[in-house]
Formats: sequence, C-alpha cells, structure tokens
Amino acid sequence: MAFIDKEIEMDYPFIETLKFDDNGLIPAVVVDHETNEVLMVAYMNRGSLKDTMEKKLTSFWSRSRQQYWTKGESSGHTQEVKEIRTDCDNDTLVIKVKQNGAACHVGYYSCFYKLIQEDGTIQEVGEKVFNPDDVYDK
Amino acid sequence: MAFIDKEIEMDYPFIETLKFDDNGLIPAVVVDHETNEVLMVAYMNRGSLKDTMEKKLTSFWSRSRQQYWTKGESSGHTQEVKEIRTDCDNDTLVIKVKQNGAACHVGYYSCFYKLIQEDGTIQEVGEKVFNPDDVYDK
Repeated sequence: MAFIDKEIEMDYPFIETLKFDDNGLIPAVVVDHETNEVLMVAYMNRGSLKDTMEKKLTSFWSRSRQQYWTKGESSGHTQEVKEIRTDCDNDTLVIKVKQNGAACHVGYYSCFYKLIQEDGTIQEVGEKVFNPDDVYDK
Repeated sequence: MAFIDKEIEMDYPFIETLKFDDNGLIPAVVVDHETNEVLMVAYMNRGSLKDTMEKKLTSFWSRSRQQYWTKGESSGHTQEVKEIRTDCDNDTLVIKVKQNGAACHVGYYSCFYKLIQEDGTIQEVGEKVFNPDDVYDK
C-alpha cells in the first residue's frame, strides 16, 4: 500500500492535494459530458483515481465489497472519461463521461430516477434503457 | 433529537427510506435546474432535508462547524429548490436549484472550477461572478 501511494505521488502530485476521508475515499459525481445530467455518485481512492486517469474509464472503490471496480466490467456499460474537475475544497470530484449503455444497474440512464414529490412520495421518472435480466448474470 | 426525528418521520416517511451514514448524513449534489451544471456537494441530515423541503431553500449540516446552515445566509446567494431526486440506492440526493449569485464562496458560479489536466496540473476555468471581499465580512 505504501508502494502504491508512493507511485501515485510521483505520477500525479495533485492527488496528494485532494482531501480523502478517514477511509481514504473521495466522492466522485459522474455526469454526462454533453448534457451535464448527473448519472451516479461513487467513491474513489488514490488507486482508482489513478486508474481512471490512465485508462480513461471510470474506476471506483466499492465500499461494500472492499475492492476496485471498473464501471461496466459486467454490463459493458463503461464510462469514457472526458474531463475531471475538483472543487474549491478539494474534497469532491466531478467526472464528465460518455456513458455507454446506461449508468444505473436497474436499467435507467441515470441512477437518479426517483423524483421526490412535494407530499414526500416517490415518482419514478425517465425511461429504462435496458432490462437488467438481459445484461447481468442471474 | 428524538422528537425532531419523530416529527420528520410523521411528515415525510420517505426520509426514513434514505440511507444516512454513521454520522446521520447523506451527500447532496446541487445542480443548476436549467443547465444541470454541478454547483456544489454538501451534506444533509434529516433536519436539514426537512428544512430544505419546507423552505424551498437548500439547508445543510456543516461537518466542520457541527451546525445547520442555509446556503446564502451570509452572502445572499441562496439556492431556490426546484426538484429533489434520490438514486437507486437511496444514499445520495440531487437537488436542482435556481442559484442566486454564485454557489462558490471564492466567487465562481460553481465550486467545480478546477480542471485537472492530463499531466495532473490544475487549471482554473470559468469566470468569477463576484469578489468575495465585497460579499463576506472580513
């Protein structure tokens, strides 16, 4: 782990200016590079950010599975990286991507398909791009 | 605190379907309601989400100051809430707003004004909407 961190520091000194949380993670907001629509939010550590920059495909750290994952590795719905930004506080990333297929594992283009109504009920908006049963192993 | 939680549960049962982290927080991605440009990411607890829904102005929980804050309370740069969405996992919010003034305390319209170049250097993009010295008390 120390070796990986050292390697990253040498390649991309700016990564050390970012504020990772106590678990070594930084949130990444993934948006469509043409419409700015927010597609998903996931978390990167230093290694997955380095991978994302080098492979030009989004890579994250799964908090539940405790492992690296490249978006689309199962579904083919990869995200081609067009631009990476950070904010005034250096504690969040915005990644602009060309989304192949759809971002959401349930079939919607964006994971943010649940609109909260004024009365607090949820309405699903948007159309499904694919049927998960056709894409993921059962 | 128990009373506040109970009150929220009665008004907005969906809030209890959201996944707040161990500190009772959920990240909120604030975007321009017309262009979808990501303006900032901040954190809400149950109380600030309830405030946001009722006042139609974004309200957050400051992790550093450990207190509620309404965006724009010092600067006047409030965010009028047009739409709230949540995602497939119920662990992140997207808030679409009409941004008055600018979102970023350093003067840019969006906090995400730092573009990461291929070589890892940072370029500031966008124009400043205001001079912080004119807006905040010194």
